[in-house]
Amino acid sequence: MAERIYNFSAGPAVLPESVLRDAQRDIWNIADSGIGIMEHSHRSAVFDRVLEEAEADCRTLAAIPDNYRVLFLQGGASTQFLMVAANFLAENRTADYLNTGAWAAKAIKEAGFYGNVHVAATSEDENFSYIPPVESVVLSDSPAYVHYTSNNTIFGTQFDYVPECPDGSFLVCDMSSDIFSRPIDVSRYGLIYAGAQKNLGPSGVTLVIIRDDLPGQTVRPLPTMLSYETHVTAGSRFNTPPAFGVYIVGQVFKWIIAQDGLKTMAERNSEKASVLYDTIDHSSFFRGTARENSRSTMNVCFRAPSAELEKKFIADASARGFSGLKGHRSVGGMRASIYNAFPAAGCEALAEFMREFEAANG
Amino acid sequence: MAERIYNFSAGPAVLPESVLRDAQRDIWNIADSGIGIMEHSHRSAVFDRVLEEAEADCRTLAAIPDNYRVLFLQGGASTQFLMVAANFLAENRTADYLNTGAWAAKAIKEAGFYGNVHVAATSEDENFSYIPPVESVVLSDSPAYVHYTSNNTIFGTQFDYVPECPDGSFLVCDMSSDIFSRPIDVSRYGLIYAGAQKNLGPSGVTLVIIRDDLPGQTVRPLPTMLSYETHVTAGSRFNTPPAFGVYIVGQVFKWIIAQDGLKTMAERNSEKASVLYDTIDHSSFFRGTARENSRSTMNVCFRAPSAELEKKFIADASARGFSGLKGHRSVGGMRASIYNAFPAAGCEALAEFMREFEAANG
Repeated sequence: MAERIYNFSAGPAVLPESVLRDAQRDIWNIADSGIGIMEHSHRSAVFDRVLEEAEADCRTLAAIPDNYRVLFLQGGASTQFLMVAANFLAENRTADYLNTGAWAAKAIKEAGFYGNVHVAATSEDENFSYIPPVESVVLSDSPAYVHYTSNNTIFGTQFDYVPECPDGSFLVCDMSSDIFSRPIDVSRYGLIYAGAQKNLGPSGVTLVIIRDDLPGQTVRPLPTMLSYETHVTAGSRFNTPPAFGVYIVGQVFKWIIAQDGLKTMAERNSEKASVLYDTIDHSSFFRGTARENSRSTMNVCFRAPSAELEKKFIADASARGFSGLKGHRSVGGMRASIYNAFPAAGCEALAEFMREFEAANG
Repeated sequence: MAERIYNFSAGPAVLPESVLRDAQRDIWNIADSGIGIMEHSHRSAVFDRVLEEAEADCRTLAAIPDNYRVLFLQGGASTQFLMVAANFLAENRTADYLNTGAWAAKAIKEAGFYGNVHVAATSEDENFSYIPPVESVVLSDSPAYVHYTSNNTIFGTQFDYVPECPDGSFLVCDMSSDIFSRPIDVSRYGLIYAGAQKNLGPSGVTLVIIRDDLPGQTVRPLPTMLSYETHVTAGSRFNTPPAFGVYIVGQVFKWIIAQDGLKTMAERNSEKASVLYDTIDHSSFFRGTARENSRSTMNVCFRAPSAELEKKFIADASARGFSGLKGHRSVGGMRASIYNAFPAAGCEALAEFMREFEAANG
């Protein structure tokens, strides 16, 4: 088929079509340089500008204070799991982690390699189907930092609060699956990181926003690539950065700005998610898997009455041009991932299809 | 300008134009899936095929034996510097390194973080302008491994031999700047790695070829992402791989196969380099900086009689559509990087321009 379909992939995920069109042009010849974006030296004037604009647009979008650095790294959130602990968790110290699912658990595992971990809250008792209420979070006495995962792709849950963090500590957040889907108060964090492949761009780029006093506070000697200070000092160019990915992320920043910024993104994302959650709530056939007060605007997880019907739903949906709806095996059923670039029309179309399917199979 | 120019960048570097044309199509909609290559889940059938074909084509190209694994990782050679030592250099052991320039020196630095380093040969005495002769390499008694850098981008030198390696040890090679520019006998190595951005694709992907007994021999506990075993076990998909980069590298493999493979690449690269070296050798104006028997077919470094004339050469060349000719500051002068995808016609055109420039300024 020549046309594009509705792509509900949990990540890598759909990108804005205008960004793809520009990329088609720029991989052949960017900015009339006679050279494609993948082929420019990372020290060239063209890439200087790509990197500078990406950082400037990121700062504009999230109103990032001057005392924060913006980095574009490699290795995904999985590398950040270990870098955060390697840099900031001394062997005799404790870091606090909120355990809200598989990715939070992986972050906890890597931290345990370097120091002590206190699980300050968990929703493991109900298969991570909810965000622990703010009053249930019990921090340790003097945590090196407090870490949480703002949106849980697999379980379709999302924090609607920012956890507290005591003086002398700092807040770390893995925002891989909801960064820039809503406004962020960066000043509440010491460190924010996000793999790009859900809301920002292709896989292979990790956005890091770090308060500028932190890189100097590394608690142990580290190999060069694992130290935040290396990358801050070198302005993301200690080694060759993932240049094409940085370019795409920069283009996505420009697209979000053109859409009127994070507040508008949040409104749209909320409306898009409501279309699906309303359909689920008005159905006697489908049911949501996340608690209502913990529901994600990014990943809408739902089940049908039987595994057979779920299989049929996914197959029928696929035949109608809805791709990527199979839920993660640890939840089962269906998952519609509807990140920033996912169009509202796709949510309407899926809701319509759900009602049709229920009528025919309910 | 609408047209593409001759791009002599040392990396990221020129890619085959047919690969760029296909990428223009596939970032919109790959394999009639209705979804672009950057937007497919790394667990999708489409990406399964991209990854499988990239590995299979890599194996075909380099006749990689069955007991070697092929990985596509992130973090560049700079991350391999530390991973090699972290995995295989115990604190009380020694690894042998051949020091042939800045990148080899960086590898040595990271290894020193984990164990002892013996510099088995060096050409530092003459600013790395030559490859230490095979008979000058003096290994330690029982090295954990022997590491060298097959081509030195900055200095324009290239090994024309494979160093010896004693029983009980294994050979490690950073082939970032000449991988697949000539045939390789993979069976002589324990581990080969290469950042993609010179001969294979965009920055952000690292090719690793590792003998399958090695990942099980890690000498210390490691965070998950730093262990080769993690990535071997997960088939390069422990976390989200740099999917677009893997796709491009796979397309470049197909392009090399279509050009008739590594033997043909080597012949062409040798002819391309000869056009420039012959021009240098027949000139009384330009001089090469690398010893004749150490000259690289990938990076041709040369000087003019004065810094002023070099500046003028680079400016005039740039005005004529030859980009990226400025040499690295530690050598000075000019450097023409002419990797696999660089066209022979570009070498002829540069040689012609060099003769013209000499006639006008000599």
